[in-house]
Amino acid sequence: MAMVCLSDFEAYAKKYLPKIAWDYFAAGADDCTTRDENILAYKRIRFRPRMLRDVSVMDIRTKILGSEISFPVGIAPTGFHQLAWPDGEKSTARAARAMNTCYIASTYSTCTLEEISAAAPGGLRWFQLYIHRNRAASQQLVQRAEALGFQGLVLTADLPYTGKRRDDIRNGFRLPPHMKVKNLERAFEVCKMSPSFHSLSWHVPHEAKTTGLDPSVTWNDIYWLRSLTCLPIIIKGILTREDAELAVRHGVQGIIVSNHGGRQLDEGPATIDALVEVVEAVRGRVEVYVDGGIRKGSDVLKALALGAKCVFIGRPALWGLAYKGEEGLQDVLKILQDEFRLSMALAGCASVSEIGQHLVQFSKL
Amino acid sequence: MAMVCLSDFEAYAKKYLPKIAWDYFAAGADDCTTRDENILAYKRIRFRPRMLRDVSVMDIRTKILGSEISFPVGIAPTGFHQLAWPDGEKSTARAARAMNTCYIASTYSTCTLEEISAAAPGGLRWFQLYIHRNRAASQQLVQRAEALGFQGLVLTADLPYTGKRRDDIRNGFRLPPHMKVKNLERAFEVCKMSPSFHSLSWHVPHEAKTTGLDPSVTWNDIYWLRSLTCLPIIIKGILTREDAELAVRHGVQGIIVSNHGGRQLDEGPATIDALVEVVEAVRGRVEVYVDGGIRKGSDVLKALALGAKCVFIGRPALWGLAYKGEEGLQDVLKILQDEFRLSMALAGCASVSEIGQHLVQFSKL
Amino acid sequence: MAMVCLSDFEAYAKKYLPKIAWDYFAAGADDCTTRDENILAYKRIRFRPRMLRDVSVMDIRTKILGSEISFPVGIAPTGFHQLAWPDGEKSTARAARAMNTCYIASTYSTCTLEEISAAAPGGLRWFQLYIHRNRAASQQLVQRAEALGFQGLVLTADLPYTGKRRDDIRNGFRLPPHMKVKNLERAFEVCKMSPSFHSLSWHVPHEAKTTGLDPSVTWNDIYWLRSLTCLPIIIKGILTREDAELAVRHGVQGIIVSNHGGRQLDEGPATIDALVEVVEAVRGRVEVYVDGGIRKGSDVLKALALGAKCVFIGRPALWGLAYKGEEGLQDVLKILQDEFRLSMALAGCASVSEIGQHLVQFSKL
Amino acid sequence: MAMVCLSDFEAYAKKYLPKIAWDYFAAGADDCTTRDENILAYKRIRFRPRMLRDVSVMDIRTKILGSEISFPVGIAPTGFHQLAWPDGEKSTARAARAMNTCYIASTYSTCTLEEISAAAPGGLRWFQLYIHRNRAASQQLVQRAEALGFQGLVLTADLPYTGKRRDDIRNGFRLPPHMKVKNLERAFEVCKMSPSFHSLSWHVPHEAKTTGLDPSVTWNDIYWLRSLTCLPIIIKGILTREDAELAVRHGVQGIIVSNHGGRQLDEGPATIDALVEVVEAVRGRVEVYVDGGIRKGSDVLKALALGAKCVFIGRPALWGLAYKGEEGLQDVLKILQDEFRLSMALAGCASVSEIGQHLVQFSKL
Repeated sequence: MAMVCLSDFEAYAKKYLPKIAWDYFAAGADDCTTRDENILAYKRIRFRPRMLRDVSVMDIRTKILGSEISFPVGIAPTGFHQLAWPDGEKSTARAARAMNTCYIASTYSTCTLEEISAAAPGGLRWFQLYIHRNRAASQQLVQRAEALGFQGLVLTADLPYTGKRRDDIRNGFRLPPHMKVKNLERAFEVCKMSPSFHSLSWHVPHEAKTTGLDPSVTWNDIYWLRSLTCLPIIIKGILTREDAELAVRHGVQGIIVSNHGGRQLDEGPATIDALVEVVEAVRGRVEVYVDGGIRKGSDVLKALALGAKCVFIGRPALWGLAYKGEEGLQDVLKILQDEFRLSMALAGCASVSEIGQHLVQFSKL
Repeated sequence: MAMVCLSDFEAYAKKYLPKIAWDYFAAGADDCTTRDENILAYKRIRFRPRMLRDVSVMDIRTKILGSEISFPVGIAPTGFHQLAWPDGEKSTARAARAMNTCYIASTYSTCTLEEISAAAPGGLRWFQLYIHRNRAASQQLVQRAEALGFQGLVLTADLPYTGKRRDDIRNGFRLPPHMKVKNLERAFEVCKMSPSFHSLSWHVPHEAKTTGLDPSVTWNDIYWLRSLTCLPIIIKGILTREDAELAVRHGVQGIIVSNHGGRQLDEGPATIDALVEVVEAVRGRVEVYVDGGIRKGSDVLKALALGAKCVFIGRPALWGLAYKGEEGLQDVLKILQDEFRLSMALAGCASVSEIGQHLVQFSKL
Repeated sequence: MAMVCLSDFEAYAKKYLPKIAWDYFAAGADDCTTRDENILAYKRIRFRPRMLRDVSVMDIRTKILGSEISFPVGIAPTGFHQLAWPDGEKSTARAARAMNTCYIASTYSTCTLEEISAAAPGGLRWFQLYIHRNRAASQQLVQRAEALGFQGLVLTADLPYTGKRRDDIRNGFRLPPHMKVKNLERAFEVCKMSPSFHSLSWHVPHEAKTTGLDPSVTWNDIYWLRSLTCLPIIIKGILTREDAELAVRHGVQGIIVSNHGGRQLDEGPATIDALVEVVEAVRGRVEVYVDGGIRKGSDVLKALALGAKCVFIGRPALWGLAYKGEEGLQDVLKILQDEFRLSMALAGCASVSEIGQHLVQFSKL
Repeated sequence: MAMVCLSDFEAYAKKYLPKIAWDYFAAGADDCTTRDENILAYKRIRFRPRMLRDVSVMDIRTKILGSEISFPVGIAPTGFHQLAWPDGEKSTARAARAMNTCYIASTYSTCTLEEISAAAPGGLRWFQLYIHRNRAASQQLVQRAEALGFQGLVLTADLPYTGKRRDDIRNGFRLPPHMKVKNLERAFEVCKMSPSFHSLSWHVPHEAKTTGLDPSVTWNDIYWLRSLTCLPIIIKGILTREDAELAVRHGVQGIIVSNHGGRQLDEGPATIDALVEVVEAVRGRVEVYVDGGIRKGSDVLKALALGAKCVFIGRPALWGLAYKGEEGLQDVLKILQDEFRLSMALAGCASVSEIGQHLVQFSKL
């Protein structure tokens, strides 16, 4: 089977992953409306391609928070990479470095931050944080990440409680016994707590204490994070102009427009639609990124045309891992890179700086 | 089979109920367009969720006409609960009381009001009324309900004649001989009439006399009802701003925006769409509720964001009964409660009072 | 099988008619887009039903050009009724009279006007005319119709050539040898011509001469018709405000908004959509009717709410004939009548005069 | 099997062509959204047909750049006709001449320009050009075409690199060994280069050098072409008002609104939608044509109503060739001609000059 486009990797992963793992990665909240809308919304955007512009020399590099990456696609934070490939996040880190792009490692990694760092020294990495009720544990994680050379801190804002993912409940999803949420083990060890992280069926708010996540987090906690670290803070999960304005006012360095892959509140906006609103509110004061629904190089072009500085891919990265680990993820990234470069050329742009809103229009359908 | 969401109960009921009973509960008028639109219309509403608001303590209680309920979901009036479960409306009453919410008992119950009251003393209940040609029978019903401690009188306004439900006609739907519309039996006994209530194929207006319902009812009859009882009067079946204004002017205490589950005039508006128009017209002068199409906790959140004080569920309650009687209906209510609480939290609301129109927008699709 | 709604008759006819006859009746031009749009367009119209209006006494009668009919549904002109039922148009005439409504007999009847008249003396009938190249033949037809007591002359304006109906071409559709277009036989006999009417595969304009229809007809020919007869002239096939204005200016008494059941120019407007434009242009100067896509009593209510004085049914009448001849057509009309009366009542109208545009709104979908 | 409409030819070709050839002709870029939108967009346009206009004498001729053609449908440039029929472009040329219309021969023909000319002397032909890195080869081609009596030079502007057509990649599409891109062979022979043209899997920009196409072409190259030839220059692939304005300013004589059959940048506009924008920008200064999605005579009428002077068909011509070579292509053209004439008549137009924007409206759906 030729791996020609990202759907090929999706079909492979669906066929070869254990059902419980596939379901966990594929899950959306409730009716999965938002998960699917993330993709459909891209299809409602039409290009306005320009002709006869010299596209013989293509430059697809960009910078995020000052770091150059080979093209504007990074790896979004997703949990439990060992469910997709034995080496887990170590493979992810290697692939990202090989492709010279940014990898956002999740709190819920099945490798420690130390293992991830050691696997791909020198790679550009950010660390994704959930704030726990036990603030000392979170503090410890942030400071470990900074010490290990992670260059950004991504605070996830949309998970005070876990969304209701029906298949995970039906499957009784939990990690296999040989996998651990290793970062937290170490954090809590330090903090003398012993949480059980195997069960992830936290869909009911009053069960939140079993996850340890803190649903009382507010904007003021940005100041607390600021006091812990010099890393730039990127907030992930913003979907409205009001929250975008609050993010800027609270001093973050970046915003990831995200609905958690449609896994949290179902029937919120598609991220590419929310991006327009957020970009308008931010007015260039901080960088804006987007994740969710990216399946083709032309989706990347659309996101950039609408103001994103870079996009991040979640499930496609997992499909790549499921296919062939580090190599499979590189394949996924290469395909996106080739497609992005080609889309740019066919739309008449020779470099990322030429991409702008004039390239797209929203279909009336 | 795990009962994870309301669709699971629907699938169960469809599989295990006698076809004739399932068809009767599922029936919509004509092409069932409005029945299905009630559900689809919710899907066209998008949330605008807000992040980083302290949602560690959730309060989902509300009040309707001064009575506190545990969350803003009550039981809509539907007929013939014995078709779903042997104990019929007695089970419904017990489940509603156990969940501390409101149950609107139908004129067409298969248990008497007295049996319903005795089954769950102290529960919050309203009584739903159809006005009969024999006004003495209706008067007797209203006064019995008041004497039994029912706390509201719900007048159904959208059934001067019964809608045309094709499957009921094909099935020759009638109640099994051992079931009775007991409230009417007693009312008519008192009034020395002997109507036959077995056949429900009243789709042709000139057959209305066989049902005894009075198609000459007008707004003035609200004054007549007012003269019979001190109970608050809630009018059910309003879909336009004009009728909402008339309802307020005629002194009702509440309005249920309803299209009778799509069983009366097909191709009227979805109730969630009509709600917007009615709430605007009412301008807070009376409480507005809505039924029809509620299938998820997030639907409840949408209805409240658009101005409903509370929603009522019809078919899902019957599915719960069909599953396990009182216990099954409690399961349905608990799922809605958990989903509603989680949706509120993920949208950034810690209490019902924080819910407002800013939380939603209508999709352009 | 219970015959509950018009679709039941459609299913019956599809099952029991010879394929070639079913295909001929069902045919639409080209991709059948307009044929299907006629139906879909009704579904995009939503009612705004009003409650608590006295609907105990329902009056569904109306008048067209001064003649009272029992309800606002007549029989549109369609050809070759013997393909559906041996007695052909004689059965149609009897059913229309029995139901006290108007029947528009087609030029392409398989019975003569004399046979039709004799079958149902005293029935309200209009005659539908195609103008032939041989004007004497057309004149003879008009004058026969008037002499026989037909009370209106319906000029079809949308068939200068026959539309391209793919299935008829594939089937090589022609009338079976024992059926004749009898009106024309007699007309041309008088005129000493001998046209062959068996083949109807006239989809190519330059073949028009084989049908004898005159593609050079213009608005001035209304004056010629006017000179031949005292009958009111109704023009059928108008779809635009411009042509509606021309029709009024040329002195017609009525307009039938029609796209020939989607059998002529594919991808023109649905008739219910065009009705709005025509009614607006006509401003009450002449009566406006509509055909195409009527499948339920509520469709009739929608058409009247949008300004039609009466609707005409084409294919459903043929399905009724195919089911049981005169009796089957009466069944179809009775169902529409019952459904129309019930829809009116549920929308809050006790008589046709209460129907108005306030009852409907166009769905945004 | 009767060949009644263009879909019949499509079904035939799909059934009888080798899969690799069918896939190549059918291919769209990426998800094929734009390829399919080209067709769907026509369906969203509704006619406003006018009645009772004398359509007894129909004149469907038109002129393009001063040359009369029998009706406003020409043959768009497509490659490799020998994949469809052994005689390849020679058959195409003969059919176009027989039908008295214009054939745009592709650079990627499997016959030489000389063979094409000799096959149908006197036919109206334009030559389609891709500009190569080796400008001498392109110059030689242009000058050969002019010398052979081609009457227009069509510059394709939308293929700096080849679009990503997934099936071609999966199939490893290349020409069978016995077919050659003969025009280029001769051109490069003259120029002492030896390119390999068998592989067409050029989806990645950096592979562009293997095709020899020059991705550095800009508007200034129009001046270079102008210096090589006296032929009128038509630019093909324009989709925006901005590029339409540039085309006019750089002195072209015509514009073909085209998205290369949806084979280049996926998710650009449907051509019939882009036509509106381009026609408005051009304001009659040069002729505007359109290709893509034409499947019925009524599509031609819509394109002309929206301002196109003529349309060109791509895939339908190949289906005709696949069916019966020259004769099959004539069949396709005759069907379009008959359908176009009939649509005009049914819309009330007796000649092309009567076609205008008043005939159409965009559906709100």
